[in-house]
Amino acid sequence: MTDMSDIAIARAARKLPIQQIGAKLGIGPDDLVPYGHDKAKVGQTFIDSVQDRPDGKLILVTAINPTPAGEGKTTTTVGLGDGLCAIGKRAAICIREASLGPCFGMKGGAAGGGYAQVIPMEDMNLHFTGDFHAITSAHNLLAAMIDNHIYWGNALDIDIRRIVWRRVMDMNDRALRQVNVSLGGVSNGFPRETGFDITVASEVMAILCLARNLDDLQRRLGDIIVAYTRDRTPITCRQIKADGAMTVLLRDAMQPNLVQTLENNPAFVHGGPFANIAHGCNSVTATTTALKLADYVVTEAGFGADLGAEKFLNIKCRKAGLSPAVVVLVATVRAMKMNGGVAKGELGLENVAAVQAGCANLGQHIANVQGFGVPVVVAINHFSGDTQAEIDAVTAYVAGQGSEAILCRHWAEGSDGTRDLATRVAAIADAGTARFQTLYPDDMPLLDKIETIATRIYRADGVAADAKIRAQLTQWEAQGFGHLPICMAKTQYSFSTDPDLRGAPRGHTVPIREVRLSAGAGFIVAICGDIMTMPGLPRVPAAESIGLNARGEIEGLF
Amino acid sequence: MTDMSDIAIARAARKLPIQQIGAKLGIGPDDLVPYGHDKAKVGQTFIDSVQDRPDGKLILVTAINPTPAGEGKTTTTVGLGDGLCAIGKRAAICIREASLGPCFGMKGGAAGGGYAQVIPMEDMNLHFTGDFHAITSAHNLLAAMIDNHIYWGNALDIDIRRIVWRRVMDMNDRALRQVNVSLGGVSNGFPRETGFDITVASEVMAILCLARNLDDLQRRLGDIIVAYTRDRTPITCRQIKADGAMTVLLRDAMQPNLVQTLENNPAFVHGGPFANIAHGCNSVTATTTALKLADYVVTEAGFGADLGAEKFLNIKCRKAGLSPAVVVLVATVRAMKMNGGVAKGELGLENVAAVQAGCANLGQHIANVQGFGVPVVVAINHFSGDTQAEIDAVTAYVAGQGSEAILCRHWAEGSDGTRDLATRVAAIADAGTARFQTLYPDDMPLLDKIETIATRIYRADGVAADAKIRAQLTQWEAQGFGHLPICMAKTQYSFSTDPDLRGAPRGHTVPIREVRLSAGAGFIVAICGDIMTMPGLPRVPAAESIGLNARGEIEGLF
Repeated sequence: MTDMSDIAIARAARKLPIQQIGAKLGIGPDDLVPYGHDKAKVGQTFIDSVQDRPDGKLILVTAINPTPAGEGKTTTTVGLGDGLCAIGKRAAICIREASLGPCFGMKGGAAGGGYAQVIPMEDMNLHFTGDFHAITSAHNLLAAMIDNHIYWGNALDIDIRRIVWRRVMDMNDRALRQVNVSLGGVSNGFPRETGFDITVASEVMAILCLARNLDDLQRRLGDIIVAYTRDRTPITCRQIKADGAMTVLLRDAMQPNLVQTLENNPAFVHGGPFANIAHGCNSVTATTTALKLADYVVTEAGFGADLGAEKFLNIKCRKAGLSPAVVVLVATVRAMKMNGGVAKGELGLENVAAVQAGCANLGQHIANVQGFGVPVVVAINHFSGDTQAEIDAVTAYVAGQGSEAILCRHWAEGSDGTRDLATRVAAIADAGTARFQTLYPDDMPLLDKIETIATRIYRADGVAADAKIRAQLTQWEAQGFGHLPICMAKTQYSFSTDPDLRGAPRGHTVPIREVRLSAGAGFIVAICGDIMTMPGLPRVPAAESIGLNARGEIEGLF
Repeated sequence: MTDMSDIAIARAARKLPIQQIGAKLGIGPDDLVPYGHDKAKVGQTFIDSVQDRPDGKLILVTAINPTPAGEGKTTTTVGLGDGLCAIGKRAAICIREASLGPCFGMKGGAAGGGYAQVIPMEDMNLHFTGDFHAITSAHNLLAAMIDNHIYWGNALDIDIRRIVWRRVMDMNDRALRQVNVSLGGVSNGFPRETGFDITVASEVMAILCLARNLDDLQRRLGDIIVAYTRDRTPITCRQIKADGAMTVLLRDAMQPNLVQTLENNPAFVHGGPFANIAHGCNSVTATTTALKLADYVVTEAGFGADLGAEKFLNIKCRKAGLSPAVVVLVATVRAMKMNGGVAKGELGLENVAAVQAGCANLGQHIANVQGFGVPVVVAINHFSGDTQAEIDAVTAYVAGQGSEAILCRHWAEGSDGTRDLATRVAAIADAGTARFQTLYPDDMPLLDKIETIATRIYRADGVAADAKIRAQLTQWEAQGFGHLPICMAKTQYSFSTDPDLRGAPRGHTVPIREVRLSAGAGFIVAICGDIMTMPGLPRVPAAESIGLNARGEIEGLF
């Protein structure tokens, strides 16, 4: 146990030069592109050179639906990676990069916590290796070229009311959600309505994370639909001729970033798409590269397993040909208690009955993942107030679901707290029992795909979609987009679309409010609720207390 | 001579690892923060450790008023630096970083040309070490916090019609020049009119380039005036509480970047403020650091000497306590011919009379710089069509002005082409004859400062400023800003405010259209013409032909 803060632990860490971390994976110093002494990109030539190697085993870390009690998905990912290394395995972790904007709103980084962290955490929460800035530039270059095309005569006949490509900024800035641009007269263009999203919501982000290589990147960028003509003909990025320059802007950003855990084990941190309107996992290039270099690769997906694991399996694994050997489902006693109806203020009191009741949420996630043909292990992320009776209740419940639960203490103990989990996960992966299959085939009609997710994952009675949405889906099928997978955008707090329905609700319906085509990323987004793509800052933003201290260290960022 | 393109020459260069370049200046590998293998930032601890060393000699490269014939100021800066190294001197150059946005508009980078280039030029014209992205983020964080402050109750009583802090993007995007933000209802804030500038026009850029260290940076950021109340009371960045977080975002960007010339000599490339509404030179931290590490530091200032050198001497040198030992004024025979009335299409024909007539422009720049007490050498940047008679005409004219002209062939020959110039410049610098003084004292009234620049540098009869502008200047004096220097924003193509008046016009007046207070940067901008702070893209943007070739190299960027 510790009473040190995350940042104090991170600062006390003995970082190794990034070349030594690369060496653990067989990457030579010339094949690392350094960014400072503790961060590097893995060179493209090296990546190309390892493509014929066999793949290591892929381990997905996912979780129950998030509650205010906290789950610790990233922390468990880091802890499991360190645990695998501690028991002598060649392992690496793959997680997402953090978005800059939210760091100035609410406190809290994205690099784990306690003794299960990735470092350097300041850099990871600020500019890091510049990937998100590159995405912002590429996105906004396309936007500028669209308006420029119209300014100089609009040869493509774009309907300025039907431009769907907005601009982005990596900042929480509600004032930019809806704006009128090109005001001020003839020399500034044709006035029209548009807006800004936060960079992680950019389709360019999703594309960067799904592209296999630079050729695939450029093809996908070219496929982006940016606008429609008056008769609804789509206009693509390729027609605007922006795909080449965007690829140039993203060339370095496509290379995976290598950093280290507190225990000096390799961590790939690359890409960070939204987990609602996008698929919410780190990049395909990072995952596939890690699989060539390590025997075990631990990665995570955003939100709970109903969103994160479902998209990881149905979108990322499908597109990239990945096949997980085992899934680790993170749960906490506290979260079970909240799912069982206990208020946040009462979490400190033992309540075995509430834990047992709340396990219904966990059970549905276990069954869902088992439905993909992949074995599931539950990691109980230990909190100091957990009682043995409560832990036993979770363990017994999980055993009854054909799975097994293992207590982890990585937050307080680092890899010492995940040896049991690591040993068991490695054994399951080595046994090769997974028979992964996606939830639906490519050739299922789009609405049926949505219904399949809603009924089999959310356990809804069905979906509600009006005629306009059904017609849109049919039109896309006619245009050749029917083979795309679905990217669900719904609340992460419940299996249902009502964030207050905890546990495992039944008898609900999933209303489809809107559907969007991400032709470059290669999925269709089904929006089932209010999805905010440009956050705002709170009344007292964290930025107000962020600054350098007398030693030049960053205070207030975490 | 060569018939290779700039990019072919750059690609053929034998780059040394950046650690070897640092070693030439006595910077150890641990004191360099690498960005790839060929770029690095100089660590702050190292910079702090050399502050007690004596300064080397500062050499400013400036030029005649630019014409379509081309001058080659950056090329001459690089060539002179290489020439000094070639004759055995310990020298370094200091130039500005390139802006990303314009690279996608018109072709052309900012890293020199021919055999006088700084490399890696692709990186320098793209994201480089991320400094401009950091400036964009810091600028826009402040903007978001202003609107957020108003959203949550506007305790500072900001008049939303009087917010002067716009947003920025490093992109040529005319659609963003004038926008309405916060549309869409209550949750998006209070609708108001604003706009975006290109990042190099941000006051944050000017501040980063003038700040001596991180403390000075934060103080200046805090001093930025972002808005006014209804009764015209200024509201500062410090009152918004953004200065600490902005400093954190800019911490790494404050460290100078080190790269190399084609001849493997050290080049600092850091900062890039506009040369119209800002002062147009590289950062004070780069220049002062270079002066501690090299015996001769060659730097340049934007546009012609009437704007660039004047601001370098009256703003940067004044603020940073710098004192140049010698000024190199770049001229070309072709440009003299254009100043003498020859059209661009006729530049290939020998015309000694036109050269002689055009030398009036050169002569006024020589006299102006001499007026600052600094010796001047004219560098004639050789073009292949120049005739000996034309060159002799320039040489003779310059001799008559109490200066001397030296022919340079660095574009075609690298340092072999600047040995004469380097030898002479070093001798003048070593002689220590400079007696630098600024053009006006701090305590001169603001309008008098403007008139002093207009009459003594531009040789105008006077300035025209209406009562409103005079009242504004008087008010700033009353508020304690009277000690600030003036940053003139006028056309770079003429000594006058009429871009078509070449040579050395007389009988003209300088109309002051607007004055702006940059309280953080520490100058008052006097605007004498149309100043565009957000460029647009041309009909066929360079971006359309930028892309990766089959070898993964970038095509079309230059």
